[in-house]
Amino acid sequence: MRIAELSRTAGVPVPTIKYYLREGLLPAGELTSPNQARYGEVHERRLRLVRAMVEVGGMTIAAVRDVLAALDDPDKSLHKSMGTVEVAIAPVVPPTDDEVAQRQGEEFVARQGWQHRPNSPAFKALVRVLATAREIGHPEFAEELDEYARVGLTLGELDVAYVLRMPSKDEALEGVVVRSFLSDAAVAAVRRLARRELSARHSGEEDPGSRSDGADLEPGLEC
Amino acid sequence: MRIAELSRTAGVPVPTIKYYLREGLLPAGELTSPNQARYGEVHERRLRLVRAMVEVGGMTIAAVRDVLAALDDPDKSLHKSMGTVEVAIAPVVPPTDDEVAQRQGEEFVARQGWQHRPNSPAFKALVRVLATAREIGHPEFAEELDEYARVGLTLGELDVAYVLRMPSKDEALEGVVVRSFLSDAAVAAVRRLARRELSARHSGEEDPGSRSDGADLEPGLEC
Repeated sequence: MRIAELSRTAGVPVPTIKYYLREGLLPAGELTSPNQARYGEVHERRLRLVRAMVEVGGMTIAAVRDVLAALDDPDKSLHKSMGTVEVAIAPVVPPTDDEVAQRQGEEFVARQGWQHRPNSPAFKALVRVLATAREIGHPEFAEELDEYARVGLTLGELDVAYVLRMPSKDEALEGVVVRSFLSDAAVAAVRRLARRELSARHSGEEDPGSRSDGADLEPGLEC
Repeated sequence: MRIAELSRTAGVPVPTIKYYLREGLLPAGELTSPNQARYGEVHERRLRLVRAMVEVGGMTIAAVRDVLAALDDPDKSLHKSMGTVEVAIAPVVPPTDDEVAQRQGEEFVARQGWQHRPNSPAFKALVRVLATAREIGHPEFAEELDEYARVGLTLGELDVAYVLRMPSKDEALEGVVVRSFLSDAAVAAVRRLARRELSARHSGEEDPGSRSDGADLEPGLEC
């Protein structure tokens, strides 16, 4: 198909496709004349994946490129690829010199019997969250981390099982990407739904964010 | 204290404080001369909270303003404030016209016996995630939602209990904010730690993102 059809099929504007081609996020099409290229299913699938990473994952172009390089490296094991993806998609958090938070994080990892990875983005993100909770006067937040570990293991086991049951390595690697950012968004959304439900049950009040009263709905968020 | 001391104490640069004052995120200090104002503990606490929302929560100034208005409204119940916060901090996701994803989301909510809130940002975010999973060829993703609901309820109950045990209304309302974005970050971080741990155990391979091999670590993420 030509670029215009690829654009219609994948729902991505032509200028965006050209940008992705220039940035190397999409392999070049097969040239059919000096000014025209043909694209196939591989392009369409890759384009949808890139769009998902950018639009839903909120990833930068550089991070997308890292992930794609891991996907396209045939020598890279699933575990290594997963590690690359974790690093690429990890939120960049400002560092902290809060030693109490650092210790809370280390003690947490030790209690779980997990390998300590002091330089992993995930560990740094955790320490940053603990430091912030302390800064704003909510040190109790750290006390619940063990419950979070149970939740994290449940989710992590789902992630790993999901990836392992993909029928091909390609799909498994894409599964790593899917799990790595789609499911964080899904957990956050489902958790908000559950929290709203529990809060409504507890308070006995009407739901504040539904269309029926609408007053609390930010107009920009309604679309 | 003067603005310079407030800056040192809270670790926020003076120009940033002045910006927050102009934007109404921080109440004005008490004027001690035409060009000088005095700030107190209230300012310091509020400043730390604003910084946390911006730096850790990644919230926009407009969203921070909505949250602060809810915190400062004495007539607003905890449940209403929680709703306002949920809306303010919800990620803005592009809408989808994928009817299958919409139905999957509705069926999920019905299965849990939860109130259906079709216009809540959380529900829309969930549908968007389901649509994206389908678009990139991973429709199986929807099958695990019931597990996510269990996790969501566990986390939601922690959230509500945490807020309710705060000793004052002020702290309870701040607790809503803390829970609403800090704990999403904490869950995501802990889940990544757990996933890395499980992946390492399963593969028997060395951890790809630790300092010892370092090759997979994005330099920008090391700080």
